[in-house]
Amino acid sequence: MKEIESLWDEVRELSLGTSSTTIDHLPSPPSPLHFLRNYVSPNKPCIISNAITHWPALFLWPNVSYLSHSLCHSSVSLHLTPHGRADSLVPSTPTHDSLCFASANVQRVPFPRALDCVLNSQPGKFVAYLQQQNDCFRTEYSAALGSDCDAHIGWATEALGCLPEAVNLWIGNHFSETSFHKDHYENLYAVVSGKKHFLLLPPTDVHRLYIRNYPAAQYSYSEEDGEFKLEMEDPVRYVPWCSVNPYPSPEAKESEMAKFPLYFDGPKPFECTVNAGEVLYLPSMWFHHVRQSSDDEGCTIAINYWYDMQFDIKYAYFNFLQSIHYRSTLTQPKREKYSGSHVSNCNLIDKSCTDSSAVDVVDSNQDEDK
Amino acid sequence: MKEIESLWDEVRELSLGTSSTTIDHLPSPPSPLHFLRNYVSPNKPCIISNAITHWPALFLWPNVSYLSHSLCHSSVSLHLTPHGRADSLVPSTPTHDSLCFASANVQRVPFPRALDCVLNSQPGKFVAYLQQQNDCFRTEYSAALGSDCDAHIGWATEALGCLPEAVNLWIGNHFSETSFHKDHYENLYAVVSGKKHFLLLPPTDVHRLYIRNYPAAQYSYSEEDGEFKLEMEDPVRYVPWCSVNPYPSPEAKESEMAKFPLYFDGPKPFECTVNAGEVLYLPSMWFHHVRQSSDDEGCTIAINYWYDMQFDIKYAYFNFLQSIHYRSTLTQPKREKYSGSHVSNCNLIDKSCTDSSAVDVVDSNQDEDK
Repeated sequence: MKEIESLWDEVRELSLGTSSTTIDHLPSPPSPLHFLRNYVSPNKPCIISNAITHWPALFLWPNVSYLSHSLCHSSVSLHLTPHGRADSLVPSTPTHDSLCFASANVQRVPFPRALDCVLNSQPGKFVAYLQQQNDCFRTEYSAALGSDCDAHIGWATEALGCLPEAVNLWIGNHFSETSFHKDHYENLYAVVSGKKHFLLLPPTDVHRLYIRNYPAAQYSYSEEDGEFKLEMEDPVRYVPWCSVNPYPSPEAKESEMAKFPLYFDGPKPFECTVNAGEVLYLPSMWFHHVRQSSDDEGCTIAINYWYDMQFDIKYAYFNFLQSIHYRSTLTQPKREKYSGSHVSNCNLIDKSCTDSSAVDVVDSNQDEDK
Repeated sequence: MKEIESLWDEVRELSLGTSSTTIDHLPSPPSPLHFLRNYVSPNKPCIISNAITHWPALFLWPNVSYLSHSLCHSSVSLHLTPHGRADSLVPSTPTHDSLCFASANVQRVPFPRALDCVLNSQPGKFVAYLQQQNDCFRTEYSAALGSDCDAHIGWATEALGCLPEAVNLWIGNHFSETSFHKDHYENLYAVVSGKKHFLLLPPTDVHRLYIRNYPAAQYSYSEEDGEFKLEMEDPVRYVPWCSVNPYPSPEAKESEMAKFPLYFDGPKPFECTVNAGEVLYLPSMWFHHVRQSSDDEGCTIAINYWYDMQFDIKYAYFNFLQSIHYRSTLTQPKREKYSGSHVSNCNLIDKSCTDSSAVDVVDSNQDEDK
């Protein structure tokens, strides 16, 4: 469907730059006006250096004994999963092919013990991630660590005209990764220790992520026998989630690429690594996938500031785009021209698409080879 | 086609306000940040009072003898039309039903004579309008009048990060009107004398204006016999232009409403009157139609500042939206349920639509009464 493909290209050509898949890198914090005009208004990501160099956190937090000492009396939210993938798609049962949307087992535990869990994570046994996207920094950590960093990002607050709606702390390591998703916030993401590796796709690429409804499930964890159990929610609840795993295992690669050709055969995602001391501006509604590298002590530590986004004409355009089905109108005889997997998948998209009221857009060019 | 209609509604609900068809009115100039955050970034119009109260122009220009005296040695661009409609759709020939896109007869004449023409305009004989949208204020007027107003709108310049690309002066009267169109600029429109009456539609309403290709024509004017002739360009050149006249004559009203139901039956346009001393922020890509009221001396005087727009994700979304055909898929038998005029027009739209590569969007709900 060449009109949607033109949109993918045009956003890159007009605004994001086609010469590479990197994003702007600012050597120092922008003025509020510059930030608003050149990044927030055009919905364009960037990395900013030297924006948090004044934070004591930069030299204090990489020291795990400092954290354990400061937070020795605090209880915090700990996310446990068997392999480091929470809020992500996993097989509903070991023997079954169908996927569900699995949330971590969440426990509230004393910080020193929680940190031990992170440092002793071992995929297959358990992977621990200290995080909770509910303003956890301010509710769980800031009494002890609040003076180590800024309560908000000054120039962003001035540009956006409000204080952050939520501030979240993330203490994990290279075993945890976050699957493709988007947030309804303007996001300032500061890495304090280790590195974060992002894959980014603009909101206009929504069809390339094959958002489908998956039944929700939750991990339970028995400390006694050290076993996870995945329990489907009852009554069943469906969560629309991106189907694409950008890093499939070697065995799954071919079938994943055949199932999700719009992602794997389309424009490459923007890639960036955010180093300790850098801040990523992740615009609202951008799809992002996150992996991380640990520091010398085995941790990756980041803090992110969620600011309210404007639900303006851009958001209305996004909803309109998402309401349009990307579909093949290939009739049976013409299928012969294609590899079966690609075609059958194109049709799958329509059938499984969540919004039954969406427009069908007919691709009159699907009978030409691309 | 309910997805595009939802877009019209959603833009109004989210961003523009549905409670009325009026736009925001600021009692004083906004800060650059406020202007950028609340108006430019969300692509939202507003009127600003007390932004040009310090201009000597406000009391000097309404005095036509001041203008004649100051510009006694200047030559300026004068636009002549028989009825006050330039860059507008008129019948190609008096006996013919088909329309063309007619441009004014443009002459360069001494200012005092040009002003006389404006003051003595008489529809049917001639209507004169002093204007030229090519930075005419700076090229033709500013040597004489430059110290009477600001060279740019300070807070807008700071917000947008650049000086105006063009500054245009408009001296006309209530006989001239400007048909629906959009500009690829951020527009700060200051009224110095008289009033301007705008109808505004957001870019998301593009299908409601029935943009079609019309052959270009030019008025010639013979001073000797006082007659206009409309000459088609040769070779023919097509101009895509909005088909809707929001103020049809009483005789034409019924047929115009039947031809353009998406405009006449859809959400009302935003309406605003910009009084002398006020500034309208007219966002890039908004469709606007302009009428005017004369001051006591018989003139309407305005000056507008065109700033470069950002060709960002909003612009890419607009192009995508425009590439989608709004079309009815009514089959012959189902037509009976509708008034003939509405239905035949819906089909007309597709046939005459200019972009043959556009997507066809099939309205599966057209067989239900709305």
